[in-house]
Amino acid sequence: METFKGSVTSAKGFYAASTAAGIKYKDRSDMAMIYSKEPCVCAGTFTTNIVKAAPVKWDMRIVEESPFVQAVVVNAGIANACTGEEGLAHCWETAQTVSKIMGIPEEAVLVASTGVIGMQVPIDKICAGVGQMVPKLSDGKEAGTKAARAIMTTDTVPKHIAVSFKIDGRTVTIGGMCKGSGMIHPNMCTMLSFLTTDAAISKELLTEALKESVQETYNMVSVDGDTSTNDTVLLMANGMAGNPVIDKKDESYEKFIQALDTVNTYLCKRIAGDGEGATALLEVKIIGAATKSDAVKLAKSVVTSNLVKTAIYGHDANWGRILCAMGYAGVDFDPEQVDLYFESANGKIKIIEDGVSTGYSEEEATQILTSDAVTAIADVKMGKASATAWGCDLTHDYVKINADYRS
Amino acid sequence: METFKGSVTSAKGFYAASTAAGIKYKDRSDMAMIYSKEPCVCAGTFTTNIVKAAPVKWDMRIVEESPFVQAVVVNAGIANACTGEEGLAHCWETAQTVSKIMGIPEEAVLVASTGVIGMQVPIDKICAGVGQMVPKLSDGKEAGTKAARAIMTTDTVPKHIAVSFKIDGRTVTIGGMCKGSGMIHPNMCTMLSFLTTDAAISKELLTEALKESVQETYNMVSVDGDTSTNDTVLLMANGMAGNPVIDKKDESYEKFIQALDTVNTYLCKRIAGDGEGATALLEVKIIGAATKSDAVKLAKSVVTSNLVKTAIYGHDANWGRILCAMGYAGVDFDPEQVDLYFESANGKIKIIEDGVSTGYSEEEATQILTSDAVTAIADVKMGKASATAWGCDLTHDYVKINADYRS
Repeated sequence: METFKGSVTSAKGFYAASTAAGIKYKDRSDMAMIYSKEPCVCAGTFTTNIVKAAPVKWDMRIVEESPFVQAVVVNAGIANACTGEEGLAHCWETAQTVSKIMGIPEEAVLVASTGVIGMQVPIDKICAGVGQMVPKLSDGKEAGTKAARAIMTTDTVPKHIAVSFKIDGRTVTIGGMCKGSGMIHPNMCTMLSFLTTDAAISKELLTEALKESVQETYNMVSVDGDTSTNDTVLLMANGMAGNPVIDKKDESYEKFIQALDTVNTYLCKRIAGDGEGATALLEVKIIGAATKSDAVKLAKSVVTSNLVKTAIYGHDANWGRILCAMGYAGVDFDPEQVDLYFESANGKIKIIEDGVSTGYSEEEATQILTSDAVTAIADVKMGKASATAWGCDLTHDYVKINADYRS
Repeated sequence: METFKGSVTSAKGFYAASTAAGIKYKDRSDMAMIYSKEPCVCAGTFTTNIVKAAPVKWDMRIVEESPFVQAVVVNAGIANACTGEEGLAHCWETAQTVSKIMGIPEEAVLVASTGVIGMQVPIDKICAGVGQMVPKLSDGKEAGTKAARAIMTTDTVPKHIAVSFKIDGRTVTIGGMCKGSGMIHPNMCTMLSFLTTDAAISKELLTEALKESVQETYNMVSVDGDTSTNDTVLLMANGMAGNPVIDKKDESYEKFIQALDTVNTYLCKRIAGDGEGATALLEVKIIGAATKSDAVKLAKSVVTSNLVKTAIYGHDANWGRILCAMGYAGVDFDPEQVDLYFESANGKIKIIEDGVSTGYSEEEATQILTSDAVTAIADVKMGKASATAWGCDLTHDYVKINADYRS
């Protein structure tokens, strides 16, 4: 398996384009489009928030009812959430516009939006944006990279990756791009992520693979504990790699899901590390839990704690806050058995053993915590289950960004 | 019922003292003591965190097993949490010291600590502090006010209140003091709060009254979503008002619980408004919910959202974040039926009606949100249940305080 700095255009037959449609931002691209030469089977996971944005409602129907899809249109700046019937009509109009220009059914067009809640999108600008993008569609690397940049809101870096692997001698590629970086919290798919693959795979197994991968990746990311109204992960497969169709859980499926996990894990770590205002990626590993569910709850509780997050920002080995956050996770364990370690590129240190301080060097701990990626590992010694969650520190800039996001 | 700026010494027969024991802070008092001339029945509620500080373990046993109590010793600076057997021995030693000096059983002495997790308390200083406080015990107003100041950590103001009312012609008083102001979140009793009353009341009804009141008050406060290891509410009643003993749920009990609610509501609003770094008290009222439990979940979800809290800091009527936080509360409601209002001393404004914007004036909304106490009222139109939760805005100073709390 080879990982490289690709994107949604890395898999065969996928095209992308972007444009500055002037929806909210000035002097930057704010719309992107993905198009597949061949029809794709498609899987999607969506926010569990009962307040669902119009594009989420649109896509849920398309993913469930359409036999195939062929295009996605994304805009940044306005979320098209809490916009009633008019918001849904705007999704339809966007799909109709693509349908007319590209000659594909409107039921083959997915839409996604991110940005401010409660405003209507300027539909004329969206439709004009589609018109600008179609002639620019390209399967080149640059088109994919630019698309990743166009969907950003408060993200500071574009997030994209690709992985290639072999099935029966044929090269199969999975590429993806996503955007964070606020209103991000476990318990749903999370934020916007677009994945393309040239694998030949049945819709049933594609759906299962995505569901399986999302549990261990997107659902383990938290920036601020807020589950967005717009979270969407879409995975499209056009079969152009020419591999024998994956339609059962055989070795080829295992290879596919391994590659998919690699792409999603990379994108999740990028989302967490680029959380609003973040200076560091915080990885929390729980080992020795009694059950997987316990491990997940403990990891999420720690990664979501504002007090843990501010301590990481301060490079402060305030382990009491970690144990405290584990304590209110709703999981049964013995605090007086817990071992805790901090690890980064600067080293690894054991902080507590059996629930009390090891008498570690604060200086050494601070040095380990002074890194842009920090891991906390807690062994609860109750069993063999483990889980990893990703988040980030809570900083002055998070407050700055969110205290006046709309102006 | 009369409310006045009293404290733990307002009820008959209660004494308080404080001292600078030099536990962690310099040049300020950091220990307080409450003493009752007569033995008291006592009720307590404690953190639900499974990581419980040593004083919590000590008090839980005393409240359950001792027929009466007579003193409480509190220290600020070190929490005595995650301190193993040694931490528990320190509680015992503190109680023994009080017992010897005052001639009361050690099982009549409660202890409470707040501050950094994971360090042992300097037990010699604690015991010396007790020795300094005993000769200073006073039932005067100033002693109560000073005690409220001595238990502060990152609190910026002392928090205390008293209420008097009549039962069968006898004046009954309930006084209280508490401290916040970080690691505060619903789902437990919360932080340290000490309540004293001269009411004559059975232990059974005192316990029930406290439990009932805590549900609507301390359990509805959130500063940062972190449930502390030390949260404690203690309520002591010495019977010195001379009223007929309250031992059934009659009119006297109703009067008592009404007064208790008044004290606790006041203290909770003070805790929320003085949350770490806060510039404003955020009150969230949910009305029209199908059940009480739904109303509580919705109110807590909104008051806990970092995105709502930063918007309040920015005086930004970003109502989408409120609807979003309601949407992930795990409660069934129709977002397209919700009405939302903002209210403060500066006025009241309807922001959304049936889930969409009313086209309100942003300028007017900002003016209403520019206040040190802001209320958001959401009507979900599903039934008749309601709930109120209290929190605060999330500010630069919260991050500053918590990024380097230990140094």
